[in-house]
Amino acid sequence: MSIRREEALHMHRVNGGKLEVKGKVEVKNAKDLSLAYSPGVAEPCKEIYDNKEKVYEYTMKGNTVAVVSDGTAVLGLGNIGPEASLPVMEGKALLFKSFAGVDAFPICLNTSDVDEIVETVKRLEPTFGGVNLEDIAAPNCFEIEERLKKETNIPIFHDDQHGTAIVTLAGLVNALKLVKKSESDIKVVMNGAGAAGIAIMKLLRSYGVRNIIMCDSSGAIFEGRPYGMNPVKEDIAKRTNTQKIEGTLKDVITEADVFIGVSVAGALTEEMIKTMNSDPIIFAMANPVPEIMPEKAKEAGAKVIGTGRSDFPNQVNNVLAFPGIFRGALDARATHINEEMKIAAVQAIAELIDEDELSADYVIPAPFDERVAPAVAAAVAKVAVETGVARREVSPEKVAEKTRQLSDITKQENE
Amino acid sequence: MSIRREEALHMHRVNGGKLEVKGKVEVKNAKDLSLAYSPGVAEPCKEIYDNKEKVYEYTMKGNTVAVVSDGTAVLGLGNIGPEASLPVMEGKALLFKSFAGVDAFPICLNTSDVDEIVETVKRLEPTFGGVNLEDIAAPNCFEIEERLKKETNIPIFHDDQHGTAIVTLAGLVNALKLVKKSESDIKVVMNGAGAAGIAIMKLLRSYGVRNIIMCDSSGAIFEGRPYGMNPVKEDIAKRTNTQKIEGTLKDVITEADVFIGVSVAGALTEEMIKTMNSDPIIFAMANPVPEIMPEKAKEAGAKVIGTGRSDFPNQVNNVLAFPGIFRGALDARATHINEEMKIAAVQAIAELIDEDELSADYVIPAPFDERVAPAVAAAVAKVAVETGVARREVSPEKVAEKTRQLSDITKQENE
Repeated sequence: MSIRREEALHMHRVNGGKLEVKGKVEVKNAKDLSLAYSPGVAEPCKEIYDNKEKVYEYTMKGNTVAVVSDGTAVLGLGNIGPEASLPVMEGKALLFKSFAGVDAFPICLNTSDVDEIVETVKRLEPTFGGVNLEDIAAPNCFEIEERLKKETNIPIFHDDQHGTAIVTLAGLVNALKLVKKSESDIKVVMNGAGAAGIAIMKLLRSYGVRNIIMCDSSGAIFEGRPYGMNPVKEDIAKRTNTQKIEGTLKDVITEADVFIGVSVAGALTEEMIKTMNSDPIIFAMANPVPEIMPEKAKEAGAKVIGTGRSDFPNQVNNVLAFPGIFRGALDARATHINEEMKIAAVQAIAELIDEDELSADYVIPAPFDERVAPAVAAAVAKVAVETGVARREVSPEKVAEKTRQLSDITKQENE
Repeated sequence: MSIRREEALHMHRVNGGKLEVKGKVEVKNAKDLSLAYSPGVAEPCKEIYDNKEKVYEYTMKGNTVAVVSDGTAVLGLGNIGPEASLPVMEGKALLFKSFAGVDAFPICLNTSDVDEIVETVKRLEPTFGGVNLEDIAAPNCFEIEERLKKETNIPIFHDDQHGTAIVTLAGLVNALKLVKKSESDIKVVMNGAGAAGIAIMKLLRSYGVRNIIMCDSSGAIFEGRPYGMNPVKEDIAKRTNTQKIEGTLKDVITEADVFIGVSVAGALTEEMIKTMNSDPIIFAMANPVPEIMPEKAKEAGAKVIGTGRSDFPNQVNNVLAFPGIFRGALDARATHINEEMKIAAVQAIAELIDEDELSADYVIPAPFDERVAPAVAAAVAKVAVETGVARREVSPEKVAEKTRQLSDITKQENE
């Protein structure tokens, strides 16, 4: 741990951070200068002035995403502020570039006020083709995302919510194939009602899962619960637990088919798993220590186990989703990332594992599987066009091919 | 012109703009991911949380400048809006990188309200080590710069004002050597009282020029002028023309030693030059057509002539100043770019031309002179330390050496 600490600090220090801004053209003589700057640069300016849409043609906007954070909910570190969150946002931007060739730039904001964040991002819209919200605490993250989606014309995506939801659902889709159950018949019990939990719940519903019970530290959430409620939980109660079942996680997990934890280490016990239906599916994503350790879950009868960790099978890693999702959205010049595009990403990730390769230890592709980002990008772009949020027609095959070309992952695998 | 138009549009289109965001480290396997992102990235986060100053050590901030514009005064195009200004801001960022290795990023703001621009830039401060304001119309540019200088802890620099002023003064310093006159004795008449003109006037005064008359379209500005005044011009009147001389440019230019134009084509005539003192020095910087064409000025007796154009000698090109100024300010972790640092830049630029090389056609180094940015950076860093605005000690020699290493200009010259 101490060696890794020193290594991580050294790597950041010796490079002076992890990102640089580079020219795509050279400026080495007067001719270059006259094209890239005055007077030649006036020509694209005039074109864009006449038709604002051409900003996508002549500038970096169409390939550029802001990674926006206020530093209020950074990794497991909590509210560490915008400066201390910058290494994470640089890292995120690095992943955008490495996995899908997206030029992402960290914007760490000196405010955690909802109105101020919304208005600031709106003012930045001319430069950016999309916004990835990151590590913003609940409940602010919900309002910020909702308002920005309404008040801008570029894709807004809170990765902590939707990235996690997409990869979790992709794993669940494959796990259900393995145990031969249908999404419409299963009972899902979730533990943890934060931003990620809520996003997972909503995406499960979009996908057709009907029976979901969410628990928080006070137990199952249900409409009219007389304790521990707030507007966010009232909303959860309206969408889940239609039978208004009361009780602790231990009470309500009986006869569940699926457990999804985005809560705390140790929240799930072997005893609880033993009360679940046959072939229980467990996603225990508390970080760094899951709700139950995989070996214990298996001993208790779990059929498929996913965690957030790279040292166990079936890692729920957002890097499987966000690079390809933004690649596809940008290539289609999408105005939004809608529910259909998220489901398209889920299916693209899930389908990369053939039925004959599928196993309890392999329901989610590996983070460095070079096929993922191209498949996700193509699927997202296709559905953006089909659902009418694309500003231009694109060929999914070309999007996939471009993603392969831009991704460092592909290149390195091929070397 | 039409060929250049097509060429400029093609270059911008084929590259999708001029900038990309690149990783300084690779992410090709789980080990890389664990250092650049979770869990390793938490280590620099914690260091910065404990000591905010360490953001300069572990992140990109210390080498990163925002190129901020609202698109209200872009080149000769006027108020074309933030989207249409993006090609210019990308171009500026490209020059920052090519000439001095500064990572600059365009921030084109969807507002031209002073308060909103100020508060937005303040909210962006955690990511950026400095701010280059660009193409913001007067008088807003003055208030925005003044307020940001007071309300942030990073260098704020409006290049349209100070870059132009620094390079013009550098040229004047050398021209005065040539004609053997002293700054304290000369009479300078300026035409054009916009942002650049005012900045030049202020810097001339900082340098020790005492006799300055500024003209606008209503003629000489003087205290108590009963027409065409506003708060900005009242301020000019307080600082210049102490004898309250009235009249048109033609009237007041008599017996002047220096003319500096930042106005319009044709504003200066041969007749006017003939009424100036011996060895007149002319900076005719209207773009694209100067106040008087160099050949005509020469015929009328002008000794030294500078313009804004690359096709005549002595081009006043801001690229001689801003890359090195920010390089030096960033390397010293300066909180401000103060008057002394600007004068240091002036002298560094001027001194690159030895007395025996100095000639009427060579008072300003060429834009692609590889010595400029390193010399400016070293001088600016040195004076930042001496004037107490540096957050750390730096060796000017090391700053110069680093600038040489980071500059593409040097590298290409050496290839």
